[in-house]
Amino acid sequence: MKRLDALGFLAGTLTTIAFLPQVIHAYRTRKTDDISMAMLVIFGSGVGVWLIYGLLIRSQPIIVANSTTLFLVLIILGIKLRGYKHPL
Amino acid sequence: MKRLDALGFLAGTLTTIAFLPQVIHAYRTRKTDDISMAMLVIFGSGVGVWLIYGLLIRSQPIIVANSTTLFLVLIILGIKLRGYKHPL
Repeated sequence: MKRLDALGFLAGTLTTIAFLPQVIHAYRTRKTDDISMAMLVIFGSGVGVWLIYGLLIRSQPIIVANSTTLFLVLIILGIKLRGYKHPL
Repeated sequence: MKRLDALGFLAGTLTTIAFLPQVIHAYRTRKTDDISMAMLVIFGSGVGVWLIYGLLIRSQPIIVANSTTLFLVLIILGIKLRGYKHPL
């Protein structure tokens, strides 16, 4: 593996695993009020486009990182959407 | 500008502006309890490494997006750290 790829994988690993403590936090507390819904939706969309970009420039770090990040962001979004049912 | 660069800029714009509603949300409510501190620290570090990666592969979208994202994440972290002073 090239050194550059290794750096990209380090970056991707950090920005990806970062959402794990957030998933755990949201799952445990069931509280996501302070997390902006607009942030989750726009960020998730952006990560999806990064994934397409990574596929087109064939950058493995970008592909792996963004597909995993998208998965974790969707879990957080799911927990937040479940929370939205409570006031009904 | 190449089409690929345009796609990268779209992705970068989305994942970057996504943090703006979060900054506004945190600033208005002064509540950041539901945002994981570990997430902010690990994510901020990762964005910093993405920035270095972008500089090395000379990808303008990665450079612009990650420098701006880092700035916004630091603002959210700052608001959260100020919130931590309250219980003292």
